[in-house]
Amino acid sequence: MVSKTPIPTVQALFFDVFGTLVDWRSSIGREARTILEPLGHRLDWEAFADAWRGEYQPGMEEVRSGRIPFSKLDVLHRRNLERFLPRFGVTGLPDDVLHNLTLAWHRLDAWPEVPEALARLKSKFRIAPCSNGNISLMVDLARRNNLPWDAILGAEVAGDYKPKPGVYLAACAALDLAPSQCMMVAAHSSDLAAAAACGLRTGHIARPNEHGAGKGELGPSVPVDVAAKDLAALADKLGA
Amino acid sequence: MVSKTPIPTVQALFFDVFGTLVDWRSSIGREARTILEPLGHRLDWEAFADAWRGEYQPGMEEVRSGRIPFSKLDVLHRRNLERFLPRFGVTGLPDDVLHNLTLAWHRLDAWPEVPEALARLKSKFRIAPCSNGNISLMVDLARRNNLPWDAILGAEVAGDYKPKPGVYLAACAALDLAPSQCMMVAAHSSDLAAAAACGLRTGHIARPNEHGAGKGELGPSVPVDVAAKDLAALADKLGA
Repeated sequence: MVSKTPIPTVQALFFDVFGTLVDWRSSIGREARTILEPLGHRLDWEAFADAWRGEYQPGMEEVRSGRIPFSKLDVLHRRNLERFLPRFGVTGLPDDVLHNLTLAWHRLDAWPEVPEALARLKSKFRIAPCSNGNISLMVDLARRNNLPWDAILGAEVAGDYKPKPGVYLAACAALDLAPSQCMMVAAHSSDLAAAAACGLRTGHIARPNEHGAGKGELGPSVPVDVAAKDLAALADKLGA
Repeated sequence: MVSKTPIPTVQALFFDVFGTLVDWRSSIGREARTILEPLGHRLDWEAFADAWRGEYQPGMEEVRSGRIPFSKLDVLHRRNLERFLPRFGVTGLPDDVLHNLTLAWHRLDAWPEVPEALARLKSKFRIAPCSNGNISLMVDLARRNNLPWDAILGAEVAGDYKPKPGVYLAACAALDLAPSQCMMVAAHSSDLAAAAACGLRTGHIARPNEHGAGKGELGPSVPVDVAAKDLAALADKLGA
């Protein structure tokens, strides 16, 4: 469902990152295998990635609900890792291995069209991640994949996690823009619905294989301003 | 005085911006003239820039001391502008002119060698401004001058103003680095002394004409790890 045409007043694009811009599932599977196979572990690496990602929302919910103070996503990723590892029969990993595994999230690969499409979009809009990933994680992904951000915004700057409204609104405020001058771009309808409720414009990117073949959003399940099959197509539609 | 050689563990460089990377005095003079001369004002434009900058530290001191809550530098710049304008016999400017004048700080030009030198430094280090300027101001300067930041850090992220220790320490923490793994780069010895007191390494850049011909720091007046005549020379000395 695409309900409205993009409004020419949009001056900034905010991006979800995990799944929307980077392929966390293949990358985490690869990194986990690289680290754990030499230690004698033979696992279903994609199931490993799915299990880790499965702890993602519950981990953040502890912060969103106020049960624990804000912690960087790196800290939650580490805690989540230790929570699910026993389910794979992996125990007793030394601290440096657990740390290196946690930093696997800093070594994710972008979907192929992303770097060039972001550079095009930057020529027309201010661009920043509005991700739940922490600043250092976003910096490492940007350096690895040549993502030419104007600034790193999102959870760590806001001190809370999406889809809490304050995260989207803090991104707009950091650029001195009204929500209506900003567009949230994501492959997840829930993220876009939350941004739209804050007054932001919304752009959906299809990532039909995010969670494995045929397991991802082919299109938005909520009204959005623009929907595209990938980021290059979004750049086309936004005239960048 | 250069007391130590740079340590190979430095992973990030943080930069002062006003004066160190951009020529605020000439740029503000030019912008003020462009806006005010058509309205009939004939002023000493460099004195105008100096007067505005003269209100800079007192304005921030209200935040540092806790007398007022944190406000973006744009807000302080606007207040400072209205404070000194009557001294130049300028009164009754409409709000949109005052706003446009305030945004002159978003339109400063970099010293000539800066963009290329920053690109070189980025190939070896994470780089971020650690300025008292707000995020949107830093973004606009970066887009205008092609400053390839990894992230925008500094006062707005820390919620306080340099030289308060929390601003330097927040920048280190954002990148998950110890202060000893970070170097503050500035043309102002006082900034470097404050950073060094927090445990950061320090790099001084000469800007002998920052405040007008012969009015600027030709070298550091405090111990630093490295001193250079400009940013390109710093990149040379850091092996970038």
